[in-house]
Amino acid sequence: MLGIDPGLNITGYGCVDFGRREPAVAEAGTIRTDAKATLARRIAQIHADLAELLAELKPDLVAIEQLYAHYKHPRTAILMAHARGAIMLAAEQAGVPVRNLPATMVKKSLTGNGHASKRQMQLAIQSACRLAELPSPPDVADALAIALCAGRRR
Amino acid sequence: MLGIDPGLNITGYGCVDFGRREPAVAEAGTIRTDAKATLARRIAQIHADLAELLAELKPDLVAIEQLYAHYKHPRTAILMAHARGAIMLAAEQAGVPVRNLPATMVKKSLTGNGHASKRQMQLAIQSACRLAELPSPPDVADALAIALCAGRRR
Repeated sequence: MLGIDPGLNITGYGCVDFGRREPAVAEAGTIRTDAKATLARRIAQIHADLAELLAELKPDLVAIEQLYAHYKHPRTAILMAHARGAIMLAAEQAGVPVRNLPATMVKKSLTGNGHASKRQMQLAIQSACRLAELPSPPDVADALAIALCAGRRR
Repeated sequence: MLGIDPGLNITGYGCVDFGRREPAVAEAGTIRTDAKATLARRIAQIHADLAELLAELKPDLVAIEQLYAHYKHPRTAILMAHARGAIMLAAEQAGVPVRNLPATMVKKSLTGNGHASKRQMQLAIQSACRLAELPSPPDVADALAIALCAGRRR
């Protein structure tokens, strides 16, 4: 199960293995793009990096945060949607189904609070995955949270 | 010059040849997606169809309408941005530079009015490109308008 927290600057990803007794983090990290590059170049980089990850990790499902219309920052949401399009495309091309999860559902399933802070999410993920360190940046924690939530709901 | 009016349901495209004395429409049409398919499948279809068009038409530039944050329908804008991401990706992968044009600039350059109606745009394009019929649907007229405006500004 590969969870993804999409973003144009930083896309977090976290692959969780549900085949063992307890869910285990198989791999996690970020895809960062060059803010000075064109939007097209940045989207292409996210797409290429994710295609590589999908080929390597071979997840059975990609779980991604659902995008809402009521954003405080519509410009950010629209730029993020460009990145999200490239991510969904890479999954479709790799033949991996995509599941969309509302952010509030993910937060609630990990912390009991649908509006948990980034810090609370990092702490919840550190505990749930028994990690020695706080998962950082928050994008990685969010991606792992999406993967955990999607895996538990399956 | 390939102009594109991006949309998840209908993406209009129009290729204008500026190599002759007067700009001439080389090709124009729409990419339509199945509303019942998943978002990932629809994005992948837009990407694949556009990649095919780019290989066939070999434009030197792709001109696309700039997306604004202040949309009346943020949900529509966000879905459109997914399609737009796939379109920009196809152009980048084909090595064709992408230029973004504000809709008001395109409308003003064709009709003198930055807030021209769809019908006014269709009539302006029919006249500018000396077409026997009104370009239809409006997405095709908008795509041709973007191509004409981008070509004139070059």
